Amino acid sequence: MPDTAAYESTERTVPTRNRERAAYDHAVVHAILDEGYVCHLGFVRDGAPVVLPTLYARVGRRLYVHGSTGSRPLRMAGEADPGLQVCLTVTHVDGLVLARSAFHHSINYRSVVVHGTARQVTEQAERAAALDALVDQVVPGRAQDSRPADAKELAATAVLRLDLEEVSAKVRTGGPNDDPEDESLPYWSGVLPVSRAYGTPVPAEGLDPSVGVPDYLTAAR
Amino acid sequence: MPDTAAYESTERTVPTRNRERAAYDHAVVHAILDEGYVCHLGFVRDGAPVVLPTLYARVGRRLYVHGSTGSRPLRMAGEADPGLQVCLTVTHVDGLVLARSAFHHSINYRSVVVHGTARQVTEQAERAAALDALVDQVVPGRAQDSRPADAKELAATAVLRLDLEEVSAKVRTGGPNDDPEDESLPYWSGVLPVSRAYGTPVPAEGLDPSVGVPDYLTAAR
Repeated sequence: MPDTAAYESTERTVPTRNRERAAYDHAVVHAILDEGYVCHLGFVRDGAPVVLPTLYARVGRRLYVHGSTGSRPLRMAGEADPGLQVCLTVTHVDGLVLARSAFHHSINYRSVVVHGTARQVTEQAERAAALDALVDQVVPGRAQDSRPADAKELAATAVLRLDLEEVSAKVRTGGPNDDPEDESLPYWSGVLPVSRAYGTPVPAEGLDPSVGVPDYLTAAR
Repeated sequence: MPDTAAYESTERTVPTRNRERAAYDHAVVHAILDEGYVCHLGFVRDGAPVVLPTLYARVGRRLYVHGSTGSRPLRMAGEADPGLQVCLTVTHVDGLVLARSAFHHSINYRSVVVHGTARQVTEQAERAAALDALVDQVVPGRAQDSRPADAKELAATAVLRLDLEEVSAKVRTGGPNDDPEDESLPYWSGVLPVSRAYGTPVPAEGLDPSVGVPDYLTAAR
């Protein structure tokens, strides 16, 4: 059954401009999140903003991020009660939009912004599932085809959970929006499509040559 | 003459982990910035972090971002004295690193994190140069080949400047760092290269067919 529900909008998830680009449907939000694996995680430290790139995974209506127990946001989330206020943003660039006027140049993109409180996950089964999800978010199928974390590695890793509650997507598609009086100007105008490309897998030094490239790597990306 | 100088490190630009991945050289930092055009801009609003994707341009040791005069961070930077505290982060993903152990999975990436105060640019010549730089950061050579902003468009656009002072790069390269005892495990291991790909330019509706695709578009990307 398709998920036709939507996230409730709030004052801070309604954009001040280009409101027609905003979306709250689960289907739109989740598809953007599922296509990526690197987010930009923002938090406040000593009153100042900090934005760090990190991996994430989506499991239902929850996001997970992880890191060393010694890393700043992970430590701060463990010490703060009830957790660390964060803003987690995922962006895909789909095209460069060249208008006749400099002013109307733009980017086709899909982004999701999540506001909320990131909490440390302490329950062992949820931690293990989140770590599998983090590996599978990058390469679906990989978690089952690698050595699981042992007790020492688990103890060194902190996992944060961020529930999807205050969430919005923003999407721009299509060609340039030039003013009608500019349309006859002699400048090329249109869209240069942008996508993510994957190259040929490079085996690790010393890899047993009888271990072939797995199907999930050649197929999935 | 090559720029052999480096940014001074501060408490918040020295990572708590993987310090060997950090770099402060102008050459490293500027090359990462120059390869991109979308950043994630973080600021604090009502005590909570906000992270938004936006375009940026580098001009020497300054970054510029722009937006509608009505957009939140632009308005906040104009109202705050001396400006708005921001963290601006740029990230390129270069590869997916598959280790034999789930724990040592990683990403090859290059990122730059800039901390500082974003100030509104009011001087007209600097504003015009910044807007050209923002167009040329996305498609080098394009600013000269489009209609410049008129007075009304200039009045609707706010430009912020962020000086490069407290800046660091972080770079991971190479293969997986598996523990020696894992190297004989029967899992494929190595790197899947990732890059940005550009497609065939799509002309705008109604574009005069005699206007060919400019060289800077086919060449630069």
